[in-house]
Amino acid sequence: MPNISDLKSRTRADYPYIMEYRTRWNDNDMYDHMNNSIYNFLYDSVINTYLIEQCGLHPPSSQQYGMVVHSHNDYFAPISFPACAELALRVNRIGNSSVTYEIALFEKGKVEVRSVGEFVQVFVDRATARPSPQGMDPKLRKGLERILVKGCTSRL
Amino acid sequence: MPNISDLKSRTRADYPYIMEYRTRWNDNDMYDHMNNSIYNFLYDSVINTYLIEQCGLHPPSSQQYGMVVHSHNDYFAPISFPACAELALRVNRIGNSSVTYEIALFEKGKVEVRSVGEFVQVFVDRATARPSPQGMDPKLRKGLERILVKGCTSRL
Amino acid sequence: MPNISDLKSRTRADYPYIMEYRTRWNDNDMYDHMNNSIYNFLYDSVINTYLIEQCGLHPPSSQQYGMVVHSHNDYFAPISFPACAELALRVNRIGNSSVTYEIALFEKGKVEVRSVGEFVQVFVDRATARPSPQGMDPKLRKGLERILVKGCTSRL
Amino acid sequence: MPNISDLKSRTRADYPYIMEYRTRWNDNDMYDHMNNSIYNFLYDSVINTYLIEQCGLHPPSSQQYGMVVHSHNDYFAPISFPACAELALRVNRIGNSSVTYEIALFEKGKVEVRSVGEFVQVFVDRATARPSPQGMDPKLRKGLERILVKGCTSRL
Repeated sequence: MPNISDLKSRTRADYPYIMEYRTRWNDNDMYDHMNNSIYNFLYDSVINTYLIEQCGLHPPSSQQYGMVVHSHNDYFAPISFPACAELALRVNRIGNSSVTYEIALFEKGKVEVRSVGEFVQVFVDRATARPSPQGMDPKLRKGLERILVKGCTSRL
Repeated sequence: MPNISDLKSRTRADYPYIMEYRTRWNDNDMYDHMNNSIYNFLYDSVINTYLIEQCGLHPPSSQQYGMVVHSHNDYFAPISFPACAELALRVNRIGNSSVTYEIALFEKGKVEVRSVGEFVQVFVDRATARPSPQGMDPKLRKGLERILVKGCTSRL
Repeated sequence: MPNISDLKSRTRADYPYIMEYRTRWNDNDMYDHMNNSIYNFLYDSVINTYLIEQCGLHPPSSQQYGMVVHSHNDYFAPISFPACAELALRVNRIGNSSVTYEIALFEKGKVEVRSVGEFVQVFVDRATARPSPQGMDPKLRKGLERILVKGCTSRL
Repeated sequence: MPNISDLKSRTRADYPYIMEYRTRWNDNDMYDHMNNSIYNFLYDSVINTYLIEQCGLHPPSSQQYGMVVHSHNDYFAPISFPACAELALRVNRIGNSSVTYEIALFEKGKVEVRSVGEFVQVFVDRATARPSPQGMDPKLRKGLERILVKGCTSRL
C-alpha cells in the first residue's frame, strides 16, 4: 500500500490517460472550494469516457456494466471554479470481474497533484446484476489492460 | 419577442463569447440525455466565468452579486455524455440593476443549436440583498455592455 | 397568462400534490442560497414521482417517456440549506402528446411561495424519440387529468 | 480496522443521529441506481446539518470550517429514485483539529444497510486555511463528542 507521501508526489507522467474538465459554478460549496462530491462526478466521467471510447462500452445496451463497490479519495489541496481540472486515469489491478482504477486530479497550469483516489468496479450482467461466471467481457479486459500499471500497489 | 423558429436558427456567430464544457457521466438521466437541470448549471457557469474574468466580479468578496430572478429555456435537440458542449453567451438587455442574458448550447462538431434560454439577474448589495439605489457597479455594467446585442428582442 | 403578482400569491391550496424534499449542503452556491439549477432538479423529482406513483410510468421500460421541451421559473425569495422544501404540483394543460406542469416551491414552516415555474413535457416513443400518432398513453393521461386545474391560464 | 462483514451488519441502532433525505430524479444514473457521487452529497448533508444544528457552526461566518481531507465508501446494495434514504451519523475519532465521521445509508422501510463510509474533516481557520494551534473550537468539539462512539475502530 502506498503511503500518503507517495500519492502526494504523483505527476501527470504516472498516468497514461488524461482529460480536461472545466469546473462549473455550482461545483464550489460555500467555502469557495470544489465540493468533495464533485471529485466523484469527475472520476466517474473519466472512467466512463475511457470505457466508452477505448473499451467498447455502450451504456444503454451493453450486456455488462460496471458497478462501483468501493471508492476512496485523499484531498491534498483545493481547486475552485473557474479553474480547469485535468483528470488522469490508470488501472492498478484487474481481477476476474473487477477492476481498480486510480484517478488523480490536477489543475491546469499547476504542477502539484490536488487529489488521488481509487474506484473499484465490478462488471455485472445487466439481466442479473451479478458478475458473470466467465468474468468480464474480453473487450473490456483488453481495453483496461492497456492502462494497467504493473507492479503498483493499491491503497486499498 | 422572437418566435421559436428564430431561436432555432441561432448560430455561433450570434454570440460574442463561447466556452467549451465537457459533459459528465451523471449529467445524463435515465433516458440517456443530459437532464434539463444541467443546462442551468452550464448557463450559470458561462455567465459567472464572464463576470469573473471580464467584469471584475470576485464572488467571495464583491460588494454586489447577481441573483437570478427569472430563467427559461427551450430545448430543441438533446445532447448526451460524453459529448462536449459549447456554451454561447450574449446580453439582450441591461437595466439599472438587472441584466438579461441569452445563452445557447451547441454540441462540438455539430451545426444546429441544441437549446436557447435566458437568465435575468438582479445585482444586489451583499449587505442588504437589495439592489443599490445607484444601480449596478459601473465595472459590471461596462463588462456586460461589451456583449450587449443592440436592437434584439427578448423572449420574455 | 397570469401576471407575476398572481404567481406570487400562490398558496399550497392551489396545488393538489405536495411532497417534502430536504435541501442538501451543496445545493447552496457561494451566496448561501440554493442555486437556480437545483429548482429544476426538485421540479423534475416531484413530476417524476407523480408519473411513477400515480400514472404507471416505469422509467427503465415504459414505451413512452416525457421529454422536457420548455421550462421557465420565477424566483421570488431564496431558500437555503438546511431548510426543508415543499414541492407543489399541478397540471395547467394537457394536449395530444404534451403536458404543461406548474410547480411551486415553498419552505416548510413559512407561508409565502418561494418560486413558481412551468415545465412542458412531450411524451415520445422510446423507439423513435417522436410523439406517437395516437398521442400519450391513456394511463398517463388519466393520471395527469386528476391534477389538472381547469380554467387556469399558463404563463407560456 | 473493522472488516467488511462488520460494516455490512451495521444497524440503525449503531448511530445516534439519523435524518431522512428523499432521493431525486437525477440521482439515478443510466443504470437506474443512485450514482456513487450522490452518496457523498448526502453524507456531507447530514454532517453539515449536525454541525449547524448541534455544534453552532454558521457556514457564512464561523471562524473555523471543516475541510474534507479523506473520504471512502463501501457500497453493499443499490438504492434508486424515488426511494427515501435514511442517513445515519456517528463520530469514530476526534483529534486536535480533525474528526472522523462514520455515515451509513439505509433505505426507508428496509432493514439492511446500503453503504457505510467515513469522512475525515480538518477544522481550519477561515483566514489562513490552516488548523489553529489551539485545535478545533470547543463548541464544535463538545457537539461532536455527543455522538462519539467510544472504543470503535476506524476502517482508515
